[in-house]
Amino acid sequence: MAGKTRFEMIKERHSKTYLQALKQGKVDPQIESLCSFIEKTENYYTSSSCSGRIMFLEKTGEKKKENNFHRRWHRTITKEELIEGINEKAKGTLWFKLEPFILHIGCANLENANTILECMKKAGVKRGGIIVAEKEKFIIELQGTGRMEFIAKEKNKQLPTNEYLEKALETANPLLEKNYERLEKLEKEFRKKLN
Amino acid sequence: MAGKTRFEMIKERHSKTYLQALKQGKVDPQIESLCSFIEKTENYYTSSSCSGRIMFLEKTGEKKKENNFHRRWHRTITKEELIEGINEKAKGTLWFKLEPFILHIGCANLENANTILECMKKAGVKRGGIIVAEKEKFIIELQGTGRMEFIAKEKNKQLPTNEYLEKALETANPLLEKNYERLEKLEKEFRKKLN
Repeated sequence: MAGKTRFEMIKERHSKTYLQALKQGKVDPQIESLCSFIEKTENYYTSSSCSGRIMFLEKTGEKKKENNFHRRWHRTITKEELIEGINEKAKGTLWFKLEPFILHIGCANLENANTILECMKKAGVKRGGIIVAEKEKFIIELQGTGRMEFIAKEKNKQLPTNEYLEKALETANPLLEKNYERLEKLEKEFRKKLN
Repeated sequence: MAGKTRFEMIKERHSKTYLQALKQGKVDPQIESLCSFIEKTENYYTSSSCSGRIMFLEKTGEKKKENNFHRRWHRTITKEELIEGINEKAKGTLWFKLEPFILHIGCANLENANTILECMKKAGVKRGGIIVAEKEKFIIELQGTGRMEFIAKEKNKQLPTNEYLEKALETANPLLEKNYERLEKLEKEFRKKLN
């Protein structure tokens, strides 16, 4: 019997990591069904995922590792949650962010990768591409649309008014809901095509 | 003599379109040098590009085609320009947007595509992937980072204060400058590796 292929080994490793994250409640609920489906396919795996979120990101420097999650929700939120979040003291600069889902899917060959790109188009997902193309290691990054991103607090001084923040949230919540609907559409396409 | 390959035909077509756009002053100045270099290579072409910009986008519906550019600048701007822009009447909803560069590069094969991805990584460009992978038609989308996006006017009512808008611009301008520096780095890598 032949040994495992490179792809099989990589998939096995990511499968383990994913199932462990699932057990620990670390997989975003809104993307769990999609990721768990992919885990069960033969030719694909997910290496990372975020379902989309609203957050206050705290920047204490220019680099990504100097960012902290001041508040982070993988769901629509209330005005009270938003205001409570911005009221809490922060060392760095706070940014309000609405981010769409992001998903990394690995597969064994270019044909598999193209199947993902097809599903993406059918589901109306606009952003996605193959970011790694090596022998038996193709990784695709998919991303939703619908973003908001603005500076909200600096040196503990709130910059927009509460009224503005609440208005922004009225826009952000429906965008996030649409993002979750898009994820459902994507999962539907995956279930038709991936094996 | 053999006929032209599919790639050669596609490149020729895009070359024509690009040189015409250049003549008509439709290529963003900050990305012109990079695109003109690529036009002269044998194995690559650009099919679309934007250098990065600050704008007020007017949304009159949910679809992209229902958006208009209320104001659009492919450079850093002054507070006066910003305030003048938001003061002008708008039918739809105005969004302030800072967008990084976006670039579509075509190439003949996967090896060429991987060379682009390598250059991208060396230049510190974080977002990019192969969005089309067909025989003799590989298209890569590259995108910078650093964004801002927030609702600014609705039913002709300005939502954030002028003070907030000016503060936002103080953040946006340096991000846009960094974006242009990143483009220069990317061009440098391209000049080392592409032919």
